[in-house]
This record gives sequence, structure tokens and C-alpha cells, in this order.
Amino acid sequence: MKNIVILVDTVGGDRGPAEVIKGCLDASKIVSYVDIVLLGPEELIKSELEKSGWPSNIKIEHASEVINMNEEPVWAVRNKSQSTIVVGSRLVKEGKAQALVTPGNTGAVMAAALLIMGRIKGISRPAILARFPIKERATYLLDAGANAECKPENLLDFAIMANSYLSSVLKIENPSIGLLSLGEEKTKGNDLVKEAYQLLDKSSLNFYGNVEGHDIPRGTVDIIVCDGYTGNIVLKLSESLVKAVFAELKTIVNSSFMGKIGGLLLKPGLRKMIKRLDYEEYGGTLLLGVNGVCVICHGSSSAKAITNAILQAVNAVKDNVVSKIKEDLKGKAFINV
Amino acid sequence: MKNIVILVDTVGGDRGPAEVIKGCLDASKIVSYVDIVLLGPEELIKSELEKSGWPSNIKIEHASEVINMNEEPVWAVRNKSQSTIVVGSRLVKEGKAQALVTPGNTGAVMAAALLIMGRIKGISRPAILARFPIKERATYLLDAGANAECKPENLLDFAIMANSYLSSVLKIENPSIGLLSLGEEKTKGNDLVKEAYQLLDKSSLNFYGNVEGHDIPRGTVDIIVCDGYTGNIVLKLSESLVKAVFAELKTIVNSSFMGKIGGLLLKPGLRKMIKRLDYEEYGGTLLLGVNGVCVICHGSSSAKAITNAILQAVNAVKDNVVSKIKEDLKGKAFINV
Repeated sequence: MKNIVILVDTVGGDRGPAEVIKGCLDASKIVSYVDIVLLGPEELIKSELEKSGWPSNIKIEHASEVINMNEEPVWAVRNKSQSTIVVGSRLVKEGKAQALVTPGNTGAVMAAALLIMGRIKGISRPAILARFPIKERATYLLDAGANAECKPENLLDFAIMANSYLSSVLKIENPSIGLLSLGEEKTKGNDLVKEAYQLLDKSSLNFYGNVEGHDIPRGTVDIIVCDGYTGNIVLKLSESLVKAVFAELKTIVNSSFMGKIGGLLLKPGLRKMIKRLDYEEYGGTLLLGVNGVCVICHGSSSAKAITNAILQAVNAVKDNVVSKIKEDLKGKAFINV
Repeated sequence: MKNIVILVDTVGGDRGPAEVIKGCLDASKIVSYVDIVLLGPEELIKSELEKSGWPSNIKIEHASEVINMNEEPVWAVRNKSQSTIVVGSRLVKEGKAQALVTPGNTGAVMAAALLIMGRIKGISRPAILARFPIKERATYLLDAGANAECKPENLLDFAIMANSYLSSVLKIENPSIGLLSLGEEKTKGNDLVKEAYQLLDKSSLNFYGNVEGHDIPRGTVDIIVCDGYTGNIVLKLSESLVKAVFAELKTIVNSSFMGKIGGLLLKPGLRKMIKRLDYEEYGGTLLLGVNGVCVICHGSSSAKAITNAILQAVNAVKDNVVSKIKEDLKGKAFINV
């Protein structure tokens, strides 16, 4: 087997390269058999590595430009050929690396992946897969924001891709798939959902039927498909709502002496819960449907989040998620239309 | 001023008439100047009232049928002319009452309100207004599920109606209005959102621009508009996520002796927080855009929720929300198209 090479964008995020590089160094100890290639201005990265020591499985690939968070994605990808995101996508396309991990502009990553790595043949639109860790067994939702406007066949493709990922990488046998709607009956939904229901129902995927908003935290199904507009709102609302409840809890704990003691007594349990709900423990979201592994992290990712995103990318590469999706599509195994 | 008459559907909910009637009796003490009319089978209601005592401002209006939760709304409204929802809508239409409070089938309430009470002239589609009590000053979101498929002009109407309600009933001066999207820039969104942005931006409403999923718990704006598919998912997800976090917290508290003591110490603060987040404290959602006040409660509403829904209906009647919406529309005050 070919050596695994993971590219990491050191300058695309909000926290600056030192934080990202720390995450890479931590990952390099855990997966010492993987080459981690730092993308960014060579001199800058070198000076960071000289401070901390330079493990043999950490390499550098020079990329002099950076795509900022507010730049128009397609324009930026077309005009910044030396940016970390573009250089990274090119190296994956050329087979010199298998994965790109980036805390950069999501739209630009999506555009570069599409324009440079290319779509998997048979997939109408790539999609972002997000993880909801409310229950011990997480629920995965896609599309979490790549496609604001969707067609019914896109939702079927999302289901096929997530099915490949959960079964090949996460080893969940025959994962159940729900379609996000506003009622469980198949007649409920907007036009998109009603048509997508027919397609999913005819497929040989393990289609559960419609699920509702309350099913997301309940873990009713393994996979939930929806359009990227809704998925993005669901993802951001969930993160923010959990944070708001914890912030409120913190205020209660800190508002009195008794509260502080109460908080101390609950700390071990709370810490475990926070750890499970913390996206940084998991890494990032996965862009599925392109010819390469692409992990998109929060712009404000900490070193820990970057480390976990690298491990997530390594697993996706080791378990051949891209080939698995291609295979599942080639046989059109799931479509009995 | 005419006597205020509020109709309450005693048999449409999941918990049976005794629970609803208890809520009505509690409300009758708080708003002794309001007539509360119980809709349902006369004999059944009478026997309940005989058990508990019969205040002079509690009346009965016989309605022999009930529309069940799983019945097709339009069919049920057309075929069950003696059902509580249909009888109630008719009495509002005839001016014999000003408001209907019901824990019944939401679709049927919507259909009856449209077909019997009638739409306010100039409003393209009625919408359900839900309240998010995460911050001390709540955010209101509509449409929370009445219209799965929306047009841009529907979203403008939603904004106008919520603006009337917040300013006339809740006395919030010039409430800020956000459009739910997946990015704050005006170029972000699905086709519906991009077009609705133009309409809202041209209006003289206090339009904030796009808001994202994380803005809902943050209380960034007073009013958030979106299509009913998305709004319904947002509402159910939020309720369920908060419940899931509290359930987890309860498990932590109960899992050890120290945890139990910690829980006891935090109880006063937690109770206040739970009270604020509890939808039962507030009542129900309001159907805006029809010729009458219509409060839709959870199917499983407790007596407390029914009491609060009645008080909510009384306020909407006292502050003339229906006339206020009509007035705001008549002058087309908000539309500079």
C-alpha cells in the first residue's frame, strides 16, 4: 500500500499558523506512519517548526497565497493559483496526496475540490457531512451547507454517499436513512422532500422514511438527508443552542457559593458530556462526492480540532471511502428505478 | 368595549378533556372579566364542571365531533361540521367570540381558520409564530410550519404580521427582522431567500438582513422569517435538543451520591432556567393572518399550558392584533416597491 499523505492548510483559518501546526505535530505522533504535509509560506512554517522540533513525518509544501474567509469562492480559486486550498487540491488530483484538511473558506474549498479534484462520476453534487453527537451513537446529516438549492436526485446521491461512508469507514452495517421533513407521513414536506421520498423509497438503501426536527437529537436514524440550506441552519442552530444552555448553566453555577459547590460536585459528569458534544473532539465535516478526501474544519479550529481532523482524514483514506462511493455507484447498487 | 369571549377546544388534544378544563378553570380566576367557552360534548363537560365547581365566566358550547390528529385536514374540516375546531372557527367568524385556543390537529386548525374565519385581505398566506425563549428577550420565528412551500412575497407578509404583533401586543418598538439563511451576506441563500431579501430590503420594516442558525439562540433579532418547512424543523429541533441536554444533566445528577447533592445545590437556578425554556409557561403558537385570534397548543398540553395559551389569546384580543395587521396592510405602510 502506498504511503498515506495528508495535506494541511496552515494559513486558511482564523487562529493563525502556529495553532494549526501544533495540531499537526500532535497528530504526527499518533499516526507516525502518515506523512503530514504543511501547506503555506515555507519560511514561516520552517520558523515555527524550528521552535518546536521537526518530526521526520512532517513535510512542507510551499503555497504563497491564502484565500480569505470573505472572498468569492470561484473567483478566488480561479485567481489564486498559489493559495493553500488550490495547491492542496492540485496535489490530491495529481495523486501526490490523498487528503486535504483545511480550516479555510468553505465555499472556496468546495469550489477547488469541484474544479480541481473533480466530482466522482455519477454524483450530481458533492455534499458536506456533519456529525451530531447527542446520543452515544451519533447521527450524521448531509448536506450541511454545500448546496443551498437542491433537486430530488441530489438528495438520493447524498444518501448513497453517506451510506458508503458509514458502512466502509465507521463500520455501521446497513445504516438507516431518514429524510428531514415536517411530518412523518410521506405526504408531508415541501415539493423537494415529497419527490425525494419517492426516489429514496424506490432505492434499496435502508430508507426509514421521513424524520422530523426532534429526531435529530434523538438519534432515530444513522443518516439524515436534507438540502444544504436547511442542513446548514440545523448544524449552526444545534451548536449554538448547546453552547447557550451551557453558558446559562455556568451562570447558575457562578451566581452563588452553593452553586459553585454544586458545580464542583457535578464536574466529572459534566466534563464527559461536554467532551462528547464538543465538535473539536471529532475534527471537521467531510466533503463527500469529490475525487479525494476533504475535511473542512471550523475557521476557529484549535490545535485539538486540527489533530482530530487529521485522524478523521487518515481513517477515510485507509478505508477507501472515495473508492467505496465509486463502487456503490458503478453497480448503481442502490437504485431500482 | 365588547365582552371578550375565548373559545377552548376541550377534546382535540392528547390528554383528554379533564386536563384542558382544569387549565380553563385556572384561567377563569386570572381573567375573571373574560368569558371562557368550553367547546365539546356538553354532557361530558358538564360532568367535569360539576366535580370541580362552575365559575360564572365559564360557559359551554356543544360540539359533538372531534378531528383526530391523523385526519387529513381539509377533508376533516369539510366533513366534520360539528367538530370543536369547525364550531369554534364558525363562532369567531360570526363575531360571537374573538379567539380560539386548541391543542388539536394543527393542519385542521389552519384549514378551518382559512376556510371559515378567512384570510386577512392582502395577506398571501397565514403563518405560525413561535417563540424562542433562550435569551431573556425572546426571538419570534415564523413560519413555524403552516406553509411547507413558500414564495418570496409570503416571507414579506410574515414579516409584516410579526411586526404588527410584536409592536401592538408585546409593545416592542420597531422590532428588528432577520431573514434565515446560511450566510450573512445578501448573496447567500437558496433562491427563495435571495428573492425575499430584495423585498424585505425595499420595505420600510426594520430589516436587519440575513441571520444564520446560530443567531436563533443568540437573540440577534426580534423576529426571524423563513419558510414553514425550515421553521418547523427549527422549532422541533430546538425543543428536542434542550430536552436532550436536560435529560443528560439529570442522568449525571442521578448517577452518584455527590451528583445528587450537586443537583440539589443547583436546583433553584436550574428551576428558573427550565421555567424560562419551558414552552408550557408561554402557551402556544399563534396563527397570524386570519380573521380572528387562533392559538395552537401542543397536542400534549398540560393544564398550565392551556391556562397560558388562554392568557396569550386574551392579550392578542385586547391589543387588537387582527385590526393592527389589517391597518398595517391597508396603508401598505411597509412596502415601498
